[in-house]
Amino acid sequence: MSDDQRFGLARVATLPGPLRLDGGVLLSPVDIAYETYGTLAPDAGNAILVTHALTGDHHLASNHPVTGKPGWWARMVGPGKPIDTNRYFVICANVLGSCMGSSGPASINPATGKPWAMAFPVITIRDMVRAQAMLLDHLGIERLFAIVGGSMGGMQALSWTATFPDRVASAVIIASAARHSAQNIAFHEVGRQAIMADPRWRGGDYYADNDPPTSGLAVARMAAHITYLSEAGLTAKFGRKLQARDAKTFGFDADFQVESYLRHQGLSFVDRFDANSYLYITRALDYFDLAEEHGGMLATAFRGSPTRFCLVSFDTDWLYPTSESRSIVHALNAAGAPASFVELRSPFGHDAFLLESPELDRVMGGFLRAGETR
Amino acid sequence: MSDDQRFGLARVATLPGPLRLDGGVLLSPVDIAYETYGTLAPDAGNAILVTHALTGDHHLASNHPVTGKPGWWARMVGPGKPIDTNRYFVICANVLGSCMGSSGPASINPATGKPWAMAFPVITIRDMVRAQAMLLDHLGIERLFAIVGGSMGGMQALSWTATFPDRVASAVIIASAARHSAQNIAFHEVGRQAIMADPRWRGGDYYADNDPPTSGLAVARMAAHITYLSEAGLTAKFGRKLQARDAKTFGFDADFQVESYLRHQGLSFVDRFDANSYLYITRALDYFDLAEEHGGMLATAFRGSPTRFCLVSFDTDWLYPTSESRSIVHALNAAGAPASFVELRSPFGHDAFLLESPELDRVMGGFLRAGETR
Repeated sequence: MSDDQRFGLARVATLPGPLRLDGGVLLSPVDIAYETYGTLAPDAGNAILVTHALTGDHHLASNHPVTGKPGWWARMVGPGKPIDTNRYFVICANVLGSCMGSSGPASINPATGKPWAMAFPVITIRDMVRAQAMLLDHLGIERLFAIVGGSMGGMQALSWTATFPDRVASAVIIASAARHSAQNIAFHEVGRQAIMADPRWRGGDYYADNDPPTSGLAVARMAAHITYLSEAGLTAKFGRKLQARDAKTFGFDADFQVESYLRHQGLSFVDRFDANSYLYITRALDYFDLAEEHGGMLATAFRGSPTRFCLVSFDTDWLYPTSESRSIVHALNAAGAPASFVELRSPFGHDAFLLESPELDRVMGGFLRAGETR
Repeated sequence: MSDDQRFGLARVATLPGPLRLDGGVLLSPVDIAYETYGTLAPDAGNAILVTHALTGDHHLASNHPVTGKPGWWARMVGPGKPIDTNRYFVICANVLGSCMGSSGPASINPATGKPWAMAFPVITIRDMVRAQAMLLDHLGIERLFAIVGGSMGGMQALSWTATFPDRVASAVIIASAARHSAQNIAFHEVGRQAIMADPRWRGGDYYADNDPPTSGLAVARMAAHITYLSEAGLTAKFGRKLQARDAKTFGFDADFQVESYLRHQGLSFVDRFDANSYLYITRALDYFDLAEEHGGMLATAFRGSPTRFCLVSFDTDWLYPTSESRSIVHALNAAGAPASFVELRSPFGHDAFLLESPELDRVMGGFLRAGETR
């Protein structure tokens, strides 16, 4: 194994482009940070692209360079795991617009030699997908054995099957939706307003003096984090439990454990994420509406699709509830595309897809294995 | 009718106290702003106290002095309305800790001659109730014909029946809960952090130069506002509808109507509400746990209660869902207290209790009238 094929080695591909974005801008070059796991088969037929969620990154199954923690899906991806790197060549790329090495508002605008900041063009989920397709071209992968994604990753997977149908044999879409709802948009707008209300945001030009709008970003993260958890899960985990001192302070410290937990979520997030990237990626999510891209009919997006689909939802997910997955399945059925669908039980809400779930492991492993015999 | 009895005339009672707060502080004097509607019967037996929600006030059925809009429950309270001011003497008092004339962080600390700001003592729902009891003493009302409240107003009503059982003949508790859940606390903590992250908050000392933390308060309001609406209601009202220009801007303006709506909710709120009051009242809500005040058993709060209860919930309310009302009813049943309960259908989520609802009107009118014949 050459150095280049080491398990989870992070690399950045500088792709000349130009990439024509949905907003009309031509972006060139396009940097895409990515990691790969396993070995690409001689016919390049065993490649799985795993797409990440809003604040995810390409450190799928390797340790995160900032936090030192295991990759966000290390329990799912590896030798002998459901996405088995002994069988598959697994790629995970940091999305366009993010801040972990791919082109985004924090990266250098070649025209000015300075960070793009808010001069970076607004992007869409489909733009992320187009950039990933350029990366696959670069890697010599014409067709994916599978694309797998949860949450925003599932939206990318859906967009892949609609944008490059001939390049995707199988698609696994977990805890996701074909469009952002009014409530989804509303929560994101709260986050964006929290960031832009932070005086240190300064119209996005905060990079030079390394004084980013961490207060606003932390509030944005806190609000979003509530939507990742179920009400029942929060009650089970925290309820009304007080902090160690076990008494109300009659003050404004974090008396309740859930307050302390949320504050920690906000504070730890700002160490690893860029506020402008948060603006851009939430905007891409809010803009996402696969049906709208196909004349208002979701089924049209899948008409004649050669892809086999697997949809998974979680019963306590209120961010992208089961009804969203079901409407995708209905559209797939209407389009005559092969689709399996399961709603799994979990107390953990939207975050369930990232957590221990033997049922999800079985669905994933089984669906991928079945694709090998086609 | 004397000037003093005019319909909805706002007055402030300065009550000498002292009021002993749950946090141990003695507060004196206590200002309570209130309005009354209708005429008190010679035996003072027709008084109804209406308690308001988090950001409500005593302008129940009169025009709001800042916004000029009709009172928050003008559709419910008035001559011939369900809470019929031809029959009842209706009182609504601004809660302790608020900012519309009652003692709170924005009012003057007599010890310093300056606004209390964060030196104001942290208060509880029960403290609000004790202050209201002092107001009733001042008005010569020993026993309430009824107490009626929605949301936080329902919590005050519950606390009234547990704290002063002999002073409440009937209680109507709408879209409320006997305790704040972990998710409820989490949303409030986001709002508090948004306020305290605003540099203009300055530890709460922003009154002197009239430069309050409006950005943080607006974000807090936006986050909370989402919880007042149902997902289905947001979809029905806004869906993914774009603003008038009817095209995505590929920018960060309010492209979607729901964004514009939320921004408006945030911006208009800061004109009428004080950020520190928002901190104090959300804290009081989070501290509320009626069972905890009674040895951990909610039924104990109602043991031997002479009050008749009416509970109302709305099927799409996810802030204080039907399950919360149902657990109150179970406790009332266990305590042997007379309780009627109905879950009403509405697309409007928690806010339903403030909106047109003929069913709620019928329940309210019928329950109050039945109390007259006892």
